[in-house]
Formats: sequence, C-alpha cells, structure tokens
Amino acid sequence: MKNYKEEKARKIQETEEIIRKYLPKEGGYQSTVIEAMNYSVEAGGKRLRPMLMQEVFHLFGGKTKAVEPFMAAMEMIHTYSLVHDDLPAMDNDEYRRGRKTTHVVYGECMAILAGDGLLNYAFETACQAFDLEEENKKVARAMKVLAKKAGIFGMIGGQTADIEAETLNEDQVTKELLLFIHKNKTAALIEASMMIGAILAGATEEEISAIEKIGYNIGIAFQVQDDILDVTGSLEMLGKMTGSDEKNHKVTYVSLMGMEKAKEEVKRLSDEAVILLKSFEKENEFLNELIKELITREK
Amino acid sequence: MKNYKEEKARKIQETEEIIRKYLPKEGGYQSTVIEAMNYSVEAGGKRLRPMLMQEVFHLFGGKTKAVEPFMAAMEMIHTYSLVHDDLPAMDNDEYRRGRKTTHVVYGECMAILAGDGLLNYAFETACQAFDLEEENKKVARAMKVLAKKAGIFGMIGGQTADIEAETLNEDQVTKELLLFIHKNKTAALIEASMMIGAILAGATEEEISAIEKIGYNIGIAFQVQDDILDVTGSLEMLGKMTGSDEKNHKVTYVSLMGMEKAKEEVKRLSDEAVILLKSFEKENEFLNELIKELITREK
Repeated sequence: MKNYKEEKARKIQETEEIIRKYLPKEGGYQSTVIEAMNYSVEAGGKRLRPMLMQEVFHLFGGKTKAVEPFMAAMEMIHTYSLVHDDLPAMDNDEYRRGRKTTHVVYGECMAILAGDGLLNYAFETACQAFDLEEENKKVARAMKVLAKKAGIFGMIGGQTADIEAETLNEDQVTKELLLFIHKNKTAALIEASMMIGAILAGATEEEISAIEKIGYNIGIAFQVQDDILDVTGSLEMLGKMTGSDEKNHKVTYVSLMGMEKAKEEVKRLSDEAVILLKSFEKENEFLNELIKELITREK
Repeated sequence: MKNYKEEKARKIQETEEIIRKYLPKEGGYQSTVIEAMNYSVEAGGKRLRPMLMQEVFHLFGGKTKAVEPFMAAMEMIHTYSLVHDDLPAMDNDEYRRGRKTTHVVYGECMAILAGDGLLNYAFETACQAFDLEEENKKVARAMKVLAKKAGIFGMIGGQTADIEAETLNEDQVTKELLLFIHKNKTAALIEASMMIGAILAGATEEEISAIEKIGYNIGIAFQVQDDILDVTGSLEMLGKMTGSDEKNHKVTYVSLMGMEKAKEEVKRLSDEAVILLKSFEKENEFLNELIKELITREK
C-alpha cells in the first residue's frame, strides 16, 4: 500500500474524533469523576481496538453509524482496565503514556470511580447503537460479545489469572496458563473489536468465526512479539527499560519456549491470520497492512 | 394484607433463587475472582431492588422470564457498588451485613476486580434477556435504563458528589446538593428497578414515568427515614451505633431541615407515592405493603 502512513494518520484522527464525540460532558455535581474519565481516555494510545473494529466493519460493507458508539465503548473499556490496573493496590504505576496516571492526578478514590464510570458508560454508550441500526438483533449480538469478552470469561478473567500467576513459582507457570492469560487479557478485546465490526456489518456466522480466529492470532502474536521485544529491543526503540520481564522474573513465551520458537510462533500465527483474511470475498488493504504492522513491529 | 410476612419471606426466597441461578460458575484459572463475586452477592441483603422490579413487572401483567436476568443484574450492580465502597481507599469498612468485606477476605486487588467483574457481568447477564423476550426493543430500553441509572448520571454520579461533599464545610452542603446525592446514590437504582419491571411488562410511557416518580419518592423517603433513624433509633433496633452521622459531622436531612420537617417530608413523599400507585388500573397489594414498610420502617 503506497500511502499507508498518511492513511493511518488520517484514520487515527477520525477515530479520535468519534471517541471524543461520545465522551460525557463535564459539569454538574459529579463533574470530577467525568473529568477523571475524560482525562484517562484522552491520555491517548494507539486507538487500535476501535480502528480494527471500523476496518472490519468496512471490510464487510458496513454502512450505518451503529459502529461508532461501539468504537467509543471499546476504548472506554480498554481505558478503564488501565486505570484500575495502575492503582496502588494493583500495579501501582505513576506514569502511563508519559502522563501521570489517573489516581496520581485525581486520587485513588476518584480513580476507582472513574474506572467504574468508564466501564458503565461503555455499555450506556453502546446502547445508543439501538437508535442507529434498525436491526436490534445485530446490536444485541454485538453487546453480548462486548460484555463477554470484557468480563470474567474474557479480559477480567485473564487479568485475574495474571495476578495470581505472579505468586507462583516459575515452574508452575505452564504454557497452558500463559496462553490462557494472553488469550483473555490481551486477545479478548481484539477479538471482540473485530467481531463487533463484522456483526454490525452483517457478516455471516462463518465469517464472524473466522474473524474471531484472526483476532485471537493477532492478540497472541502481538503479545509474543512484546515478549521478544522486551529481550531484544533497545531503550531508544521501546521507550522503556527493556529486559524488565527478566528483571521481574516474569514467565514469558521467550523464557518458556526460547527465542527461536517464540519467533516461529509469531510467524505461524500471523501467516494463518493473513490466509484467513484472504479467504473473504472482499478485501481491505489498509486492514491487511495494519495487522502486518502490529505483528512485525519492532517497537 | 393478611399474610404479608409469610408472603414476603416466600418472595425473598424466590428472589434469592433467581439471583443464584444467574451467578457465574466457579472454576478455571479465573476462579478466584468468581468466588469473590459470588461471596459478595451471597452475603445477603434485603434483595429489595430485584423484588421491586418483579412486583412492578407483575403489576403491569408481565409474563415472560425476561425480567429474571435483569433482577440478577440489578443485584450485581448494587453489590459491586458496595464492594468498591468498602475498599480501603473509599470507606475502608471491614464488615458488612455481619460478614467480612470482600477485600478483607480476598485482598484489595481481587476486590477491585470482583467489583469490575460484577458490574461487567451485570450487563452480560442482562443481555440474556434478548433470548427470553421476542420484542428486542423492550429489552434494549430496559438495558438503557439500567446503564444510565447505574452510571455517572445516576449512582456513580451520586457517589462522586457524596465523596466530595465530605470535604466541604457544613454550610456549603445545600439542600440542593443533598437532594442530588440521594436522588442519584440511593434513588436511581430503585427508580431503575421499578422502571425496568414496567418496561419489560409493556407498560405505557405515562405509566413508566409515574413509576419513575414513585421510585424517586421511595428512594428519597427511604434515605430521609434513614437519617431520622440515625438520630432516634436505638442500638438494638438498628444493629449499628446510632448517631453516627452526627459523630461524623455528616450533613443530613435532619441536621439541615430539623426533625419535624424531615418527618413531614417522609410523609409527603410516601403519600404521593401511594396516590400515584393507586392511579393505575391494576393493583398489586403486596407491592403496596412492601413500599409502606420500606418508608415507615423503624429499623
């Protein structure tokens, strides 16, 4: 694709505008929690999940505006998980994306409420799609996927297992457990984003299943690549201290399977995703490039 | 009503069974968070909100099972708000309903996740109603009400204002602010419970509006009565130290308007609720009794 970089910049901008449109208005006696929510969402990030959602929506010829509230909802859910992750009782992080974390700026109490507020507002926002799409069944299906993949049988489940894995001995962390963690903590929201795009665009059951598999492969490959970069990356390229996993004695794909096998795994997962993506009648060149970039990124 | 007490005991039992039916199964790598969620829900409580929902559903002739997942969802949302409220960064409570709070038993980290899990699972559960009620529009409307009244323009909004009010001087807490807090923190979920019952049963717009007003009156009267009992109640009757509001210098209806005016307000609100309730064609004697008991309770 010739002008992929420009196209991506334009699409990120467009995604930002859609997200901003659905953020709650500040004001009233509850203004502080809304400010904390908006501060957290506006801290930026790659906007990867809503972008994937919209691209899959376009791939299957989606036309309505119903995808927009779901794009915003997905980013709210991703953001709330970061706000709660950063809390003193969890990872106790003071900075994220170069900005002070929500609890540092607004206090712990307000950060808990802002996370709750974002999670709840995600569903409140997604509900707006019922007014934008005549076929309520499609919106209901998308809502179910959102709830499931974000919950205890999705992201929260992965988060729970991850936290408990930290208390295990290294030899207790099996490949099965590691895969469970990443399937749920990382891949679930990527699967959901892509599935919701497909569902709202009216894709068939088979297509939705294939998209879920593609989302899974992207999510896991993304995570394995992260583990690889943690070892091989340089300080300049990653913008953070590398080798942090090793320092924290964290079990990763690389420590469990070795560097070569990890690299092979990334290749296998991404090749499979590309083949599945090519099996559809229609094509979205930008989506192909985006996925390739995600998996083979070097920072 | 002759056998109100037996009837109520039976209905609480029935409500408990419905809630339990929708609780997630424990097991898997994420079992701890599910155990913490179920521990929190099973800690008991009056099950007031789901009971009100079902009684209003019956009042308007509701027949399907679609109300059941919403009953469970409502109790999950109520419960998550208590779990997060009890956290060290919030009220730092070690006991609730005579049992150790969730973070005392499972740790702070797991209590945050369990609260998130319950909030998310509430929507996941409510989504099941789409399969139980042919008319998706009704379920979508009920979902909107659930999300709104639980969120920043409902319960979370009230919670935020309440927390900030604690840092204000007593003379800065106006009647308007106090009303905002209780409308949102206490009344919003009662309004939502009753409205969802009406919506799912196919009540008219006017009926839904009247029900919302009744829910509001019940919520506020319940809260004012709570403030009154905090002053007048005895240790035996309330099961907690009374006068705690005064000790905490908390501004209440009683401190703001005086005991007499507060009692008048409870009477005015409940009389109005009863008149509205009588304006419907159909009657639910048990619901009338339940509301009367709630407002005039002496413990």
